[in-house]
Amino acid sequence: MKHKVLSVEHVGIAVADIQSSNKLFNEILGIPAYKMEFVESENVTTSFFQVGKTKIELLEANENKSAIQKYIEKKGEGIHHIALLVEDIKASMAYFADKGFKLLNSEPKVGADNKWICFLHPKETNGVLVELCQEREKR
Amino acid sequence: MKHKVLSVEHVGIAVADIQSSNKLFNEILGIPAYKMEFVESENVTTSFFQVGKTKIELLEANENKSAIQKYIEKKGEGIHHIALLVEDIKASMAYFADKGFKLLNSEPKVGADNKWICFLHPKETNGVLVELCQEREKR
Repeated sequence: MKHKVLSVEHVGIAVADIQSSNKLFNEILGIPAYKMEFVESENVTTSFFQVGKTKIELLEANENKSAIQKYIEKKGEGIHHIALLVEDIKASMAYFADKGFKLLNSEPKVGADNKWICFLHPKETNGVLVELCQEREKR
Repeated sequence: MKHKVLSVEHVGIAVADIQSSNKLFNEILGIPAYKMEFVESENVTTSFFQVGKTKIELLEANENKSAIQKYIEKKGEGIHHIALLVEDIKASMAYFADKGFKLLNSEPKVGADNKWICFLHPKETNGVLVELCQEREKR
């Protein structure tokens, strides 16, 4: 398998209060969040909006040590990452490692919305936190 | 007409050097930019990558007073805005104005990629610079 990007799966937005932000994005997008989910591996609460073929994901930190909390303290609320759906996450991770990109985890980890995920370090990607993701097989 | 969001049309990324960033995003996305375009109204040079149904737009400032230059000086390179394709940009602008959102222009202006565009002020949108856009009619 080779590295192949299929789509922009979602855009992640760091928010301080997910309940009020769910209302705000309901107003902006004209649709409500279709689900909320606690993501243990990232220590965040997330909500998802389906906009055409792409999703908007809101992320609220569950405690101070969460990466989302640190992000908001440093940069304020805003767009946090862009997630690329790839055909085979292990092939894509090997591709980026081979090219000298820094991966934030060495094995795919379980993310929100039933996905395998891996982040690329933003220092090598024009300041853009890039998430690679692949659908997990249904159990 | 009512406010209706059709899709995430593109995600805009502020870059310092569009030539080197075109190469970088070619590596990340596995495809080259399909076009470059100078946008007079924003004083930026842009390039576009088609990723599934969504585009990635890179933006480089053409001079120091460009909003992109100010953004990079303040926040560094990174994700700059998210663009929502709407059914009728004037209806959407009226909808947001009525709800008390601040619009950065009072009439739609000509943006990149043959679009009418209008930005919402990020202070009222969780720090997210939201672009509304609609295809201009072909001449």
